[in-house]
Amino acid sequence: MNGFAFYDLITHCTQKSDSGETILSASKTKPADNVRAIRWEASTLTLLDQRRLPGEVIYRDYVDAVDIATAIHDMVVRGAPAIGITAAYGVVLAARKAYTKDPQAWQTLIQPDLDSLASSRPTAVNLHWALERMQSLFAGISGDPEPVLLQAAKDIHAEDVAANQAMGEVGAGIIGQCRAVLTHCNTGSLATGGYGTALGVIRSAYRRGNLQMVYVDETRPWLQGTRLTTWELMQDNIPVTLLADCAANYLMSRGEIEWVIVGADRIAANGDVANKIGTYGLAVAARHHSIRVMVVAPVSTFDLGIADGSHIPIEDRGPYEILQCGGHLIAPGGVNTWNPVFDVTPAGLIDVIVSEKGAIQAPDRQKIKALLV
Amino acid sequence: MNGFAFYDLITHCTQKSDSGETILSASKTKPADNVRAIRWEASTLTLLDQRRLPGEVIYRDYVDAVDIATAIHDMVVRGAPAIGITAAYGVVLAARKAYTKDPQAWQTLIQPDLDSLASSRPTAVNLHWALERMQSLFAGISGDPEPVLLQAAKDIHAEDVAANQAMGEVGAGIIGQCRAVLTHCNTGSLATGGYGTALGVIRSAYRRGNLQMVYVDETRPWLQGTRLTTWELMQDNIPVTLLADCAANYLMSRGEIEWVIVGADRIAANGDVANKIGTYGLAVAARHHSIRVMVVAPVSTFDLGIADGSHIPIEDRGPYEILQCGGHLIAPGGVNTWNPVFDVTPAGLIDVIVSEKGAIQAPDRQKIKALLV
Repeated sequence: MNGFAFYDLITHCTQKSDSGETILSASKTKPADNVRAIRWEASTLTLLDQRRLPGEVIYRDYVDAVDIATAIHDMVVRGAPAIGITAAYGVVLAARKAYTKDPQAWQTLIQPDLDSLASSRPTAVNLHWALERMQSLFAGISGDPEPVLLQAAKDIHAEDVAANQAMGEVGAGIIGQCRAVLTHCNTGSLATGGYGTALGVIRSAYRRGNLQMVYVDETRPWLQGTRLTTWELMQDNIPVTLLADCAANYLMSRGEIEWVIVGADRIAANGDVANKIGTYGLAVAARHHSIRVMVVAPVSTFDLGIADGSHIPIEDRGPYEILQCGGHLIAPGGVNTWNPVFDVTPAGLIDVIVSEKGAIQAPDRQKIKALLV
Repeated sequence: MNGFAFYDLITHCTQKSDSGETILSASKTKPADNVRAIRWEASTLTLLDQRRLPGEVIYRDYVDAVDIATAIHDMVVRGAPAIGITAAYGVVLAARKAYTKDPQAWQTLIQPDLDSLASSRPTAVNLHWALERMQSLFAGISGDPEPVLLQAAKDIHAEDVAANQAMGEVGAGIIGQCRAVLTHCNTGSLATGGYGTALGVIRSAYRRGNLQMVYVDETRPWLQGTRLTTWELMQDNIPVTLLADCAANYLMSRGEIEWVIVGADRIAANGDVANKIGTYGLAVAARHHSIRVMVVAPVSTFDLGIADGSHIPIEDRGPYEILQCGGHLIAPGGVNTWNPVFDVTPAGLIDVIVSEKGAIQAPDRQKIKALLV
C-alpha cells in the first residue's frame, strides 16, 4: 500500500519554493481562488509542476526560454491560457539572453528561442497569440527590451485573470440556479493566469450559491480531472465528485447534471472547438440527453484564420500516456496505441460560448465575427 | 522507470502453476485461442488471477466455495459467463465439503456456501443462472453429489465454449467484410469458458480474414481493455490498438470503425442490456455516427424475469478503483467519487443481439421471447 503515502503529503505538504508561503494551509477557510501555477518573482519565472500533482506540490524556477519551451512540451504547465502566459514570460527571458549577448542584434538572436516556444505544443492557439503580441512590440523598443516585455507579459497575465473573472460572471448568469454540472480536464487557476475559464464559471456559480455539485471526469490519459481539477476545487472547498470518463453518459441519463462546461484550446471562425480529448463525446452525449453545453474561453483562444475545426492541428502525444497511468505501466509491452489528446466539437453541438467580450448563443461564423472583429 | 519492469515479465514469463505449460511461448505461432482462465484439474479449481495481468501470469488454486465467492467478488475472475462457470465449480466444492461433514444433511449444510456464491457480484445474471441449474440437480442425487455436480459444471463450461464458438460464427457472418471494430472491456477467453462472446465474434471475423484492426477502449476504472483484452488478443496475434475511453467518439467521427461489438452482463426481457460502464456511451456515440452496435451474449445472460433495464441492479464498487490506477493512488485523498461499474443500454440503441440460438436484429420483447422461450 505504498501508493497511499501521498495522502499524508496532501494533508501536510507545504509549498516547496523558498518563498515561505503555505498554499494548502491557506485553503481550508473559504470558497476562494487559492492556487497560482505561474509566478514572476525576482527576475525568474516559477511554475507549479502539474505533472506531480496531487502527490507533490513542487515549484520549479526558470531563467531560460528553451527550458520553458521544454516545460510546456512536457506539461509542467498546461492549459491553453496558461501556456500563452508562460510563453510570454519566456519571451522576456529570451530577450534578456539575446540582449546580454549583443544589445544591437537581440531581435535577430532571439529568433531560435521564439521558434522553440512556438513549437512546444501544436493545438492551443493562445501560445501563438501571446508570442505574436510580444513580438509586435519589438520594433518599438530601444535599449534593454526586458522592462517593456516584462510589463507586456504581466499585462497578458493580469488581463487573463480579469477575463476569467468577467467570463465567470457572464457564465454564472447564464447558468442561474443549477444543481450540478459536469466538467472535463482542468480549466481552472492551474490552466490559466488564475480563476479559470470553465472552472471560473463554476467558481462564480458556486460563490453565488447557485451550484451544489461539480462532477469531474478523470480525463484520461493525463488525468487532469483526477489529479488537478479535484485538487484545485478541494483547495477552494467547492464540492466535487470524480467519475470515470466513460460513466458520463450514465450520469446524464440519470438526470444528475444540467450543464457540461468546458474550456477550449482553439476555436475556429465557425465556432468549432478544439479541446481536450473527450470533449466531443461529452457534447454528443449532452445532445442525446438534452443537456446544455457551455464553452468558456478568452478571445485569445479564437483563431479566425481557421475556417473550421477540420484545419486545427490535433496533437498526438504517442503511446507512453496510454501505456501508463500515474507513472506506472499498465498495458502489455509493445501494444499499439492511438493517443490524440484533443478532439473537435462542431459548433452545432455547442449551446453557448462565453468569452470576456460576452456570450454567443448557438455560435456560428456571423455571431463570432460580430463579437470579435 | 521501475514501472516498466514487467515488459520483461511479459516477454519471458511462463505459467506459474505446477502443470508445466508455458502459455506465452505457445502464443506466437497462429491466430488462435490460447488463453484459459478457468480450469478444473486434480479435484481443484484453478483461476488465472486477472487482477495481476498483464504484469504477472499467476494461477490460483481453490478447494473451498467461500474462497471462490471471495475470488469472484475481488475479481480474480470476472466476466459474466466466467463468473457463472466459476460459481458452478464452486457448488461442486461446496457439496464436497457439506457431504464430508454429513452425508445425510449435505443439501442443508451447503446453503450458506451457495448464499456466499450468489451474493458475490450483483449485476451479471449468469451467476444465478448457473447456481439455479446446479441446484436443480440436488433433488435427484443420492449418495456422493460430487460426480454428478462436477459433470454438470463441466457441461456448463463446455457448453459455454461451444456457445461462444457458435456466436462467433453467427456474428462474423453478420459483420462480413469489416475494416475495423471497437470493443469495450474484456469479453474473451478471460471472461468466459473460452473463445469469448464479443471477442469470439472478433476472433471468428479475423480468422475469416474479414477484419483488419480491433480498437480496444481502456475501460476505466479497472482497465479490462488495457490489461486484459490487449493481452489476450496479442497472445493470439490479432491486431489491436488501444485508446482512451474518451477518444471513442473522435475515432468514430474519423470513420475508422464500422461496428461496436460488446458483451453483456444481463439482458432484460425487452432487450435492454446491462454491461460494463461505458457501453451505453458507446451506443449513444455509435447512433450519432451511424455506426452499428452488436451485443454478443449466451442465453444464460437473458433475464426474462426483468421487464426492462431499469430493474437491473447496478454494482457500485466504491472509491478505490477511481482513486487508483494499476494499484497506484492518483487522486487527492478524501475526494468524493462515483463508481457505477455497469450501465444500461436501451434496446433501441442496439442493432443486433447475437446468442447461440441465433441473432435478433433490432431487438424487442417479442423477438427475444420468440427466440428464447
